[in-house]
Amino acid sequence: MIKVGIVGATGYGGEELIRLLLSHPQAKITALAAKMDGKVAKISNIFPGLQGKIDITCSDLNVEEMAEGADFLFLALPHQVSLKLVPQFLKSGKKVIDFSADYRFDDSEVYQKWYGVRHTSPELLKEAVYGLPELYRDEIRKARLVANPGCYPTSVILGVAPLLFRGLVDTESIIADSKSGVSGAGRWPGEGFNFCEIEENFKAYKIAGHRHQPEMEQELSNLAKKEVRISFTPHLVPMKRGILTTLYLDLKEEMRTDGALKDFQDFYKDEPFIKILESDKFPEVKNVCGTNFCHIGCKVDERMKRVIVISVIDNLIKGASGQAVQNMNIMCGFNEKEGLEQVGIIP
Amino acid sequence: MIKVGIVGATGYGGEELIRLLLSHPQAKITALAAKMDGKVAKISNIFPGLQGKIDITCSDLNVEEMAEGADFLFLALPHQVSLKLVPQFLKSGKKVIDFSADYRFDDSEVYQKWYGVRHTSPELLKEAVYGLPELYRDEIRKARLVANPGCYPTSVILGVAPLLFRGLVDTESIIADSKSGVSGAGRWPGEGFNFCEIEENFKAYKIAGHRHQPEMEQELSNLAKKEVRISFTPHLVPMKRGILTTLYLDLKEEMRTDGALKDFQDFYKDEPFIKILESDKFPEVKNVCGTNFCHIGCKVDERMKRVIVISVIDNLIKGASGQAVQNMNIMCGFNEKEGLEQVGIIP
Amino acid sequence: MIKVGIVGATGYGGEELIRLLLSHPQAKITALAAKMDGKVAKISNIFPGLQGKIDITCSDLNVEEMAEGADFLFLALPHQVSLKLVPQFLKSGKKVIDFSADYRFDDSEVYQKWYGVRHTSPELLKEAVYGLPELYRDEIRKARLVANPGCYPTSVILGVAPLLFRGLVDTESIIADSKSGVSGAGRWPGEGFNFCEIEENFKAYKIAGHRHQPEMEQELSNLAKKEVRISFTPHLVPMKRGILTTLYLDLKEEMRTDGALKDFQDFYKDEPFIKILESDKFPEVKNVCGTNFCHIGCKVDERMKRVIVISVIDNLIKGASGQAVQNMNIMCGFNEKEGLEQVGIIP
Amino acid sequence: MIKVGIVGATGYGGEELIRLLLSHPQAKITALAAKMDGKVAKISNIFPGLQGKIDITCSDLNVEEMAEGADFLFLALPHQVSLKLVPQFLKSGKKVIDFSADYRFDDSEVYQKWYGVRHTSPELLKEAVYGLPELYRDEIRKARLVANPGCYPTSVILGVAPLLFRGLVDTESIIADSKSGVSGAGRWPGEGFNFCEIEENFKAYKIAGHRHQPEMEQELSNLAKKEVRISFTPHLVPMKRGILTTLYLDLKEEMRTDGALKDFQDFYKDEPFIKILESDKFPEVKNVCGTNFCHIGCKVDERMKRVIVISVIDNLIKGASGQAVQNMNIMCGFNEKEGLEQVGIIP
Repeated sequence: MIKVGIVGATGYGGEELIRLLLSHPQAKITALAAKMDGKVAKISNIFPGLQGKIDITCSDLNVEEMAEGADFLFLALPHQVSLKLVPQFLKSGKKVIDFSADYRFDDSEVYQKWYGVRHTSPELLKEAVYGLPELYRDEIRKARLVANPGCYPTSVILGVAPLLFRGLVDTESIIADSKSGVSGAGRWPGEGFNFCEIEENFKAYKIAGHRHQPEMEQELSNLAKKEVRISFTPHLVPMKRGILTTLYLDLKEEMRTDGALKDFQDFYKDEPFIKILESDKFPEVKNVCGTNFCHIGCKVDERMKRVIVISVIDNLIKGASGQAVQNMNIMCGFNEKEGLEQVGIIP
Repeated sequence: MIKVGIVGATGYGGEELIRLLLSHPQAKITALAAKMDGKVAKISNIFPGLQGKIDITCSDLNVEEMAEGADFLFLALPHQVSLKLVPQFLKSGKKVIDFSADYRFDDSEVYQKWYGVRHTSPELLKEAVYGLPELYRDEIRKARLVANPGCYPTSVILGVAPLLFRGLVDTESIIADSKSGVSGAGRWPGEGFNFCEIEENFKAYKIAGHRHQPEMEQELSNLAKKEVRISFTPHLVPMKRGILTTLYLDLKEEMRTDGALKDFQDFYKDEPFIKILESDKFPEVKNVCGTNFCHIGCKVDERMKRVIVISVIDNLIKGASGQAVQNMNIMCGFNEKEGLEQVGIIP
Repeated sequence: MIKVGIVGATGYGGEELIRLLLSHPQAKITALAAKMDGKVAKISNIFPGLQGKIDITCSDLNVEEMAEGADFLFLALPHQVSLKLVPQFLKSGKKVIDFSADYRFDDSEVYQKWYGVRHTSPELLKEAVYGLPELYRDEIRKARLVANPGCYPTSVILGVAPLLFRGLVDTESIIADSKSGVSGAGRWPGEGFNFCEIEENFKAYKIAGHRHQPEMEQELSNLAKKEVRISFTPHLVPMKRGILTTLYLDLKEEMRTDGALKDFQDFYKDEPFIKILESDKFPEVKNVCGTNFCHIGCKVDERMKRVIVISVIDNLIKGASGQAVQNMNIMCGFNEKEGLEQVGIIP
Repeated sequence: MIKVGIVGATGYGGEELIRLLLSHPQAKITALAAKMDGKVAKISNIFPGLQGKIDITCSDLNVEEMAEGADFLFLALPHQVSLKLVPQFLKSGKKVIDFSADYRFDDSEVYQKWYGVRHTSPELLKEAVYGLPELYRDEIRKARLVANPGCYPTSVILGVAPLLFRGLVDTESIIADSKSGVSGAGRWPGEGFNFCEIEENFKAYKIAGHRHQPEMEQELSNLAKKEVRISFTPHLVPMKRGILTTLYLDLKEEMRTDGALKDFQDFYKDEPFIKILESDKFPEVKNVCGTNFCHIGCKVDERMKRVIVISVIDNLIKGASGQAVQNMNIMCGFNEKEGLEQVGIIP
């Protein structure tokens, strides 16, 4: 049984992480911190659904106390806040999974360019492992520091990886058209997220300029072993959870849907949380909501010599807290599915 | 004042058409028909919101009575039902706007291939005008028969036309990723459209196989004066109205966002229902809902040598009944904006 | 043609008022003010849907300029802000309709008790007319100052009035169970109104303690000519617009549904915006949304000697801006329906 | 480990039951039947979310095979279908929990009056236990046949019971104003449940005439030991899950909120699935969704000598399948919370 601490416990990511860990037989939450403005409160008073399930308090972060109370740390914080906390926790010998973008990039220049912040621990960027188990399981196993991927990148990279890795995809023309539920903006988004502004609306935003784009390009380039650039367009869907990404991949050679699906099957054959749909079935958000699964389907448009891949995840689980638990399981030598076996709720 | 008859008055398209025509000073609805199973009912009893606004009855179609009671006919019917009605109404000297796909294609083979029905009046396909005023205003003015465009094609063609027409777009790689509200499926869709199946869900469907695709390709080919093929992916959004289409157009030469926007401005400079957004603004469904407008914005992704165009419409207005009224105005020599001046309701 | 000024133009009430007045043939919006923090902007840039419809600017309020620019003033402001503005505008000889609670009460003590603010113009409370045309049309006609009713009180009072006025209802046990869409909280509600907190949720709030309760009790007491107290429970529905109120009225004598409906019909027989549904039909929010109508249905539960009345309105129209336009029409001698003839949009 | 069979496995109630039982350590689903029109399919193909979790097939019901394959039967069927199946399964020595109304009534006349069906096993009505554990735990423990309560009655009875049982409530004037999510209508409701007809709408239905009313009155009368009649008004909320009931109970003596809450606390003090909120807090649907909990809050309106009680449940869990599992746990001597420990998902 490991002792787990969560910093940023009151956001949607923190809340979901607590929920998942409560069903984990080998992890026990022993310390919680968040921006509390000096207050101390039982987490079960902050989230009434937790009453009877967990009884500890949440307060402002005291790094030393947190390090004393926990062996394994999740930082569910905005970028730039994690930046200086990570080295402190590593120094006290803790393992850390960071939800922010602060340790996702190999190149501190890319981080500075897109996040507007100079990186203060560039040496740790070499050590940090990008926490996508489907690509980096071995590295995660040995890591002290895992940078948990962004929600959009998770859905994009998982959908592109198999065909890109096999060299079947034109690397100059990839398009990722993503549609996300609103919880991706966090618990305290701006006034544009009021119910009346979202309900019965649909829009694109940050076209060709979203901060998750360089993260995708880094990982796709690693996979392709050459520089890959993509067009990424995020959209906001009037629903709470879920990301569906539609990928347009130009094929270097002719291919049929069955062949493409077989490549996906092969690439992910031992993956516990990837499901490839059969021909002519396409993923729906509702089938992954509440789960750590990524569902993938595809169709080759032979006329256009292009494959259209659809991937869906729950942005708060496989796109954040569930993936973090999966990473913890790998880092700690637990069964990778521990704490992540829930069946999604429908309807 | 023209006398207007509507066949298919009880579907969403018919209902919206009635609503719009009620504010039209030169058109008077004089006859209504629908699938009524022998019943006759006041339309204001079928749609309580119409009480005090219109007092006529709706019954099963009797072609002769309808032709006697009206000068101008709207057929808001499924494909194949219009097919044989159109010639009958034309024969009685009526002008007709048909909402279905039955008269949208130049080539009866394409119709038969995609709709599975042999065309029984191929000679009328030559005469029928595709009712997109932004492209065919002059032809519409003289037409007896207008085939009202599909909702998806309206949003796609309007977003592609300016740059394609100017020869700036690679015609081999166009992608249209469309997202539609649920009313597009009509008032009587299958059980998959029950609230519990749609709410908090998002999915793609009929990937690279939707019947609106050949309609788009026909019109884009006409514009480009060469064969154009596209990838078209429709998605279902948990909202009632609205279509947002994200277009990915590879550019044949370098271009900047301002230049692209200027091309849009020029192409649509006299159009009453097209609005081009300024640089760095992107269309949202809520700003066109309840209106006949199409809003268009774009961003050039210079790294990818590609322009990403966003177009939005209300699928029941510019995508169906509003466009039909606009076509009627043109065919009858009315002010093109008559009956279409409503401000959208927000929130 | 009267010149209209709106203070508080950028809230939902102000926006809706602009939309309605744009279709009014005898009113022209000539001046707009709002909390703009020193900025001046075209209203059509703030609300893109207004482009091409109205071209004037909105800036922070300057009372003198506003009074010069307009003859008739709408104050769509929070309570306490109107309090001191109203006397100034009246002094300059303007007619005023105030959306806030500041001038709704006969008794300044009640105002102070519920709103926590001492009334600074108690003498105007005598003069101000409560702007519910169905009860006070004659007084409104002669008024300089109309206090536009709250949204909940409109739905409650209209549903109770006919039977209460006729002395058929026990005045000690009235219950109003109201359910409102989210726009009632305005454009800038707190974080509890973020999409993720509202969607798929339902709750009651301010039980037996909502500020609209004393307003209802004042008006019902006036109608009954004796003190009436009620239980009022507001609830929040995950939708944008609409209020449905379920009223439980204990009957003093036996009655049947048809008899009750006839009383409603009689009471409202000349009302342009009240519709009484026939027996066994009950109002739905969607049938009034986008309109100034109040729909009312009822059923007598003979076993319980109680009538259950359902009333629905669009909270932003009959519950706010539409009722204000109706009041303006009465005050100015216009046709009472002017600017309020729109058919609601369905779906 | 008991072997469980489910008849009606493909409806929302059946699907939710499967989901809950999958996490139950002492129950194993061994047989599934539903209306399959002759087809046989893996349940994990019908519900993709179940893949990897359960591998058995579902087919049309064969009573003998079902009885051979399972020891404990859940009938998640419409009323009248269960009527004749229950005796057959009892005869084969099985324990049965029936989701329908067929065995909920003490008096077969009441059943016949409200459901229009003559009861064919009136002798079993004496034996059947009404499956509300908070009232009938001891009887459930010994039962062969449990009639699982309706969703509305669960929320109403739990909210009324404590004060009614103590004789504090006037039994002639009780009002239950309930608001339900749409899943209560089941997976195959009529066309009025299409997304476009529900979204942004709110309505009451079957006022003073819903079939759940006699069920409430039976149980409340048992509690009060005298005949109790109530006014019950159900409403439809545009959300998938959840019921919130607002109860208006006239008090026979003066009381304060704290006193009422203490009565609730006492009455439910050992209940694992009832949570009484503290003073000035009121239940919200989102805090019980995905759980078997009923949350209850109240406020005494001293002026009106009335207590307003709010109760919320997840209609598919405490209002159906979760309560059924709770009943099974009691009938089989398992820990009552087994299979029901999930934390609800927020947001």
